[in-house]
Amino acid sequence: MPDDPRPEHWLEDLAPGMRFATGEMEVTEAAIAAFAGEWDPQPFHTDPAGGGGSVFGGMVASGWHTAAITMRLVVREGLRIGGGLVGLGVEDLRWGPVRPGDRLRVEGEVVEVRTSRSRPDRGIARVRLVTLNQRGEEAQHLVCAILVPRRP
Amino acid sequence: MPDDPRPEHWLEDLAPGMRFATGEMEVTEAAIAAFAGEWDPQPFHTDPAGGGGSVFGGMVASGWHTAAITMRLVVREGLRIGGGLVGLGVEDLRWGPVRPGDRLRVEGEVVEVRTSRSRPDRGIARVRLVTLNQRGEEAQHLVCAILVPRRP
Repeated sequence: MPDDPRPEHWLEDLAPGMRFATGEMEVTEAAIAAFAGEWDPQPFHTDPAGGGGSVFGGMVASGWHTAAITMRLVVREGLRIGGGLVGLGVEDLRWGPVRPGDRLRVEGEVVEVRTSRSRPDRGIARVRLVTLNQRGEEAQHLVCAILVPRRP
Repeated sequence: MPDDPRPEHWLEDLAPGMRFATGEMEVTEAAIAAFAGEWDPQPFHTDPAGGGGSVFGGMVASGWHTAAITMRLVVREGLRIGGGLVGLGVEDLRWGPVRPGDRLRVEGEVVEVRTSRSRPDRGIARVRLVTLNQRGEEAQHLVCAILVPRRP
């Protein structure tokens, strides 16, 4: 995004407690079925009537769809990191149900920042990303580690 | 998948140490760009030439794309669970680089099985899913908890 107006953040710009928030993205029935048809083809994700007998009691989005929506929102509207948002891994990821018509948004917080011992030109930030629906219920709770370079 | 020839597994069928494996899925340059264009729009994922200056040294797949490929392989070819494959959460998820032309497959293992205390008609299985490329290198390492009903 070359015209991105958000300031770039480098390792020395990050500190625990920094927060950010994104706008909303609506999750339609068609979007749930399309994502799941390709990546998680199970009736309670792909068929509007297919979740009735499931533990969900109705159609719900694949958790990986919720994760992908979260990433899209954060890449486009969350904290902008110098060199891009490079995830190293996830230490905790939990899901709640996402149903057709839900509107998701993300609230993020930096929880830890540390410099690499072996590569002092970079570091690792631990970030908590909470994905909420229009009623404020958690659709996803994620703690991940991202690679953050020092300012060049 | 109504014609699925795989036997359904219920809680009492699962035991630690049970293993399964899937076939391969090739990850093309076009597929990497298409997934990332929608869910993780960053140059080192969307542009074949855009990763040159990044920490990856070339185009790589979004980690969420690797996760989605893993789910697709496991839903279609992995252990078939009665009532479907319902993930409760992920306790560990790490990624290695996936580059255009890589072929991914999944090796899975049940690591723990326990009955729910509050709902004895169901339980939780912890499963390790290791996604490997054609050179046997780890593209993803995932440990997740899934909900498994007892046989009705």
